[in-house]
Amino acid sequence: MHPTIKREVLMSRFLSERFAEIEPYTPGEQPQDFDYIKLNTNESPYPPSPKVLEAVNAEETAKLRLYSDPEVRQLTQEIAEFYGVRPTQVFVGNGSDEVLAFSFLAFCDADHPVCFPDITYGFYKVFAQLFCLDAQQIPLQEDFSVRVEDYCDCGRMVVLANPNAPTGLSLSTDQIERILQTNPDHIVLIDEAYVDFGGESCIPLLGRYPNLIVVQTFSKSRSLAGARLGFAVASEELIEDLNKMKFSFNPYNINRLSILAGTAAMNDKAYFEQCREEILSTRSKTKAALEQLGFQVLDSKTNFLFVRHPDLSGDDYTRQLRKKSILVRHFSQTRIKNYVRITIGTPKQMETLLEATKEILAIRRQEL
Amino acid sequence: MHPTIKREVLMSRFLSERFAEIEPYTPGEQPQDFDYIKLNTNESPYPPSPKVLEAVNAEETAKLRLYSDPEVRQLTQEIAEFYGVRPTQVFVGNGSDEVLAFSFLAFCDADHPVCFPDITYGFYKVFAQLFCLDAQQIPLQEDFSVRVEDYCDCGRMVVLANPNAPTGLSLSTDQIERILQTNPDHIVLIDEAYVDFGGESCIPLLGRYPNLIVVQTFSKSRSLAGARLGFAVASEELIEDLNKMKFSFNPYNINRLSILAGTAAMNDKAYFEQCREEILSTRSKTKAALEQLGFQVLDSKTNFLFVRHPDLSGDDYTRQLRKKSILVRHFSQTRIKNYVRITIGTPKQMETLLEATKEILAIRRQEL
Repeated sequence: MHPTIKREVLMSRFLSERFAEIEPYTPGEQPQDFDYIKLNTNESPYPPSPKVLEAVNAEETAKLRLYSDPEVRQLTQEIAEFYGVRPTQVFVGNGSDEVLAFSFLAFCDADHPVCFPDITYGFYKVFAQLFCLDAQQIPLQEDFSVRVEDYCDCGRMVVLANPNAPTGLSLSTDQIERILQTNPDHIVLIDEAYVDFGGESCIPLLGRYPNLIVVQTFSKSRSLAGARLGFAVASEELIEDLNKMKFSFNPYNINRLSILAGTAAMNDKAYFEQCREEILSTRSKTKAALEQLGFQVLDSKTNFLFVRHPDLSGDDYTRQLRKKSILVRHFSQTRIKNYVRITIGTPKQMETLLEATKEILAIRRQEL
Repeated sequence: MHPTIKREVLMSRFLSERFAEIEPYTPGEQPQDFDYIKLNTNESPYPPSPKVLEAVNAEETAKLRLYSDPEVRQLTQEIAEFYGVRPTQVFVGNGSDEVLAFSFLAFCDADHPVCFPDITYGFYKVFAQLFCLDAQQIPLQEDFSVRVEDYCDCGRMVVLANPNAPTGLSLSTDQIERILQTNPDHIVLIDEAYVDFGGESCIPLLGRYPNLIVVQTFSKSRSLAGARLGFAVASEELIEDLNKMKFSFNPYNINRLSILAGTAAMNDKAYFEQCREEILSTRSKTKAALEQLGFQVLDSKTNFLFVRHPDLSGDDYTRQLRKKSILVRHFSQTRIKNYVRITIGTPKQMETLLEATKEILAIRRQEL
């Protein structure tokens, strides 16, 4: 069994030559059974809001014979209300990956290159390859923080995950504002997939920066990874650009039940807050416990921890946990190969993780 | 209220110049209330299989916190079994539009142009615009049939809807085979969205033609337009090419509930056959009744009729029906502007359509 899915090198003689070298994204493993404690893809350990379970009912399932609303009005409206923007400032995608794909397609081309950190969400460089873009990967600093100056007046579209993944580190909106101010002729896309776990959202900056796109997702803080919902908030003009892409690629991009699920989840603010606070509390306790065991733990503003231990390689730790039916995520990039990314689960799951980790460290110490 | 949604001409100064002239697809109107008899977008008048309603339940909705399977194995397996192919020969998309988009992206480029009929699914020319392709639109013959010779040895990817939309006319697999044989170095994509209503599928030809891609959808014959599911069946190599696009664009393209719904629908062969036969019977009766009223009705192998009446313009007939709360689809292209496309609904809905049509014709005759 493979820890990750690798796309085969197989290709037909019909595939456009520009894709000969493409390296598709490798998603985290998604076992379809429940034999694992799944801390590898930053899902919520809590089910969606009870309102979601009410909204997705037999009556609505019977209506699946009818197309969904290509304008996704109901969900767009609910998101707009939550964030205090106009519905025309919201674009909903089939997961935030689709929103990102449409953004790269719309705003980059042979004359409009892009940049992002060397250590960040691995999909950005795949989009750049897919659309044959000049992509500059700017190294994070030694401590994995983003050096703001690197992105000022940089002559490219800027894509920053904030908080960043897999580091969990965050920039302040003041820092992002400097990037926005110094790049008035380029899009600055802030991917806020994890912002609800302690980051500062840039949505309040929208009125002042027509070059800003904020992207968020329902996959983490809203417990709907399996519904495939992400969204962008930006100026009306930029949202209309994204709509042009969608209506030229896949107009009915959101299915009926996900529209209902997303609307109910966005509407249930109390449940959202409750889950979020639970995760922040568990994160804080888990971080302290791992540090007690000798781990270095980065300052996470997300629902995961990025950790390393002097006595354990990232690869080894991941494999040992897997033997104990716990999945975490390891990345093979040189700079972070000693790290492991651990999603914050329930308190009980984290207890199990900590127990397993103690056992692994005990055996490791006998070996040393 | 507008009969169709037109994308606004608004664009930002950040949008890539190659999209300055793009004309996105205009979907048929999807009113979100139930005040209309909806015969405008070729949905099934019957709800999805009872097995779909069993499969989409509260337990599964609670699992929406977890990502869906990016390999869509369960549904891929079910489709493969239904058509007697290997699972590695099946690609599932978020609607067949996404399958088509990935196909244009994968197999066409500046050196690899495409062709399709002038009267066909309006999205093909939008994909060609989106990906900046040289697209030849080959006129249908006077009677709206495809002239097979036009596509033989044509030096381009061939895209044919078979049966064609909005005409409803169909080619035989023998005719398609001639196109496949004379274009061994180009993809021939057969869009079989409507094939279950009397067309001949090209899936049995797959073993012999490595250049063939067959695309189908769950939106028509399987009553799941709102679940957004389409698929391609082709050689393993071509499917892997499509997977390369998907895993570079949106790996988790199908949500959890649609995977379950699609699997259940594909599995319930008896219900599928029953709905299909019902629609064929209603189509036959409706065609005869419209002909009795003086309509010319093309020979449909689909779940719609393409009709015109000597005393009524297509536009006028559409508007008059709308006043009577019946939606049908009218296209403004010159060659077909006198026609109207009418989806086959339930027998009762077609009775209402016929009554409304009689009233419209009676008033029209008084005016003449």
